[in-house]
Amino acid sequence: MPLSYNEYYNEQTGLTIGLKKLLFSEQSEYQLVEVYETDTWGNLMTIDGMVMLSERDEFVYHEMLAHVPMFTHPKPKRVLIIGGGDGGTAREVLKHNSVIHVDMVEIDKTVVDASKKHFPKVGDFENPKLNVLYEDGIAFIQNVKNPYDVIIIDGSDPVGPAEGLFEKDFYQYCKNALTPKGVLSTQTESPWVESYHPSMKKVFGALDDLFPIAKMYLSFIPLYPAGMWSMGLASMGESPLDNNVIKRIQSVSKLLASLKYYNSDVHSGSFALPNFVSKIIK
Amino acid sequence: MPLSYNEYYNEQTGLTIGLKKLLFSEQSEYQLVEVYETDTWGNLMTIDGMVMLSERDEFVYHEMLAHVPMFTHPKPKRVLIIGGGDGGTAREVLKHNSVIHVDMVEIDKTVVDASKKHFPKVGDFENPKLNVLYEDGIAFIQNVKNPYDVIIIDGSDPVGPAEGLFEKDFYQYCKNALTPKGVLSTQTESPWVESYHPSMKKVFGALDDLFPIAKMYLSFIPLYPAGMWSMGLASMGESPLDNNVIKRIQSVSKLLASLKYYNSDVHSGSFALPNFVSKIIK
Repeated sequence: MPLSYNEYYNEQTGLTIGLKKLLFSEQSEYQLVEVYETDTWGNLMTIDGMVMLSERDEFVYHEMLAHVPMFTHPKPKRVLIIGGGDGGTAREVLKHNSVIHVDMVEIDKTVVDASKKHFPKVGDFENPKLNVLYEDGIAFIQNVKNPYDVIIIDGSDPVGPAEGLFEKDFYQYCKNALTPKGVLSTQTESPWVESYHPSMKKVFGALDDLFPIAKMYLSFIPLYPAGMWSMGLASMGESPLDNNVIKRIQSVSKLLASLKYYNSDVHSGSFALPNFVSKIIK
Repeated sequence: MPLSYNEYYNEQTGLTIGLKKLLFSEQSEYQLVEVYETDTWGNLMTIDGMVMLSERDEFVYHEMLAHVPMFTHPKPKRVLIIGGGDGGTAREVLKHNSVIHVDMVEIDKTVVDASKKHFPKVGDFENPKLNVLYEDGIAFIQNVKNPYDVIIIDGSDPVGPAEGLFEKDFYQYCKNALTPKGVLSTQTESPWVESYHPSMKKVFGALDDLFPIAKMYLSFIPLYPAGMWSMGLASMGESPLDNNVIKRIQSVSKLLASLKYYNSDVHSGSFALPNFVSKIIK
């Protein structure tokens, strides 16, 4: 038997990934952070036994979580990322020329340290516009003095330290911390995994109540359960499907040329929800 | 260790599905056809060790392979399905009121027999409009006298009996067998699996050469490698993204209400290709 990593998301259904060796394993104050060298996905990070990212597929998650809200705002200058310790979301945010400051609030320094060492191409940690704080995002968001144009919730699954990121109170605090045309995105689990439906309903119910515009969008992420991943977009200003948003995306050819997943068609198309998915959050 | 089914698509990367028991196993003249009872996916059919369908997720593949071409044609009356032995594609085709006759040409009667017994809700084999022929589709298509409005290629992977379904000659024969505004769809493997890229390039190169309109579209299929599946659409008449096609879809509310995946947004959105996917077939 070759060495393999197995993640089960549905009784005995799951993903198997061939491993070469364990590169890093640390039980932090919050969670078990591990990095493996894999056969075909590059290095792979898991937290408490759940895949967070691989070098080969991380571009999908990070491009989609970052660029959908960033382009929905007319000129995002100040951005807050809650979680996102691997640095990939900040890297994508920092590709936008309008950005002058990014605060990244990651509860677990172990994730950042593991990423800097084993995923050197994922983060852009030396960028002078990026300020990393090792704090609890849920406490941080309640005390924001200087609001943000875009807030991105890049947390893990709704068990463990990220549980509070799926609560309505948290999204109310986020709304209070946004500028008048502010935009928010958040990762909201796989529609194919029934055990996550209650968390998905809770988040989209909260976004619907709190924001004039709240929508789910989807991405193909091969190492996340069932390959289908949902994210939430909430806006106090423009809708992500407005024509000006599409024109804005198409106007930045240099940024777009650096991307492997996101483009203006994918931006719009990702909001097309299969019937069984819409039903979950109705 | 619980009993499990493992399919590896990328060296050691793959899917694991918990099994309850083996219900059917027959080495036919062409391939090994097996049916398992699974823990959470209902019954599951594999051919030569590759997942074909499960009761729980089959709706995605069948709705997307059938309705995208069916709605791209203004009034499909005669339809040919090559392969599709489980009956799911024919079931979706037969939901269109304009249809008067469907020929389904399946090389392997074992697949049809296994489906009738173990997937009773997948097929609509008693429908008087459906004519099942147990023949080689590649031989059949070269001798079509009465052309079809829509041809759907519902074959397995490009190894074994379905290999010829990825060749240019085959698509030339299909074109010859279509009415003047005819439309074709075909399953074209997962963009995440590099070993299938040569077959994908070959099919889309052929469709591009032969048809005025040729496009790839994508679906989320949890039990197919990496959860992302591509299909090809070729048309001698309308484009699938024409406004009349979208209006046509929205006009048949009764048909749409029976579906779990497909709707007019999903129809358009499925043609939005991530950059790394467009590159494969450029």
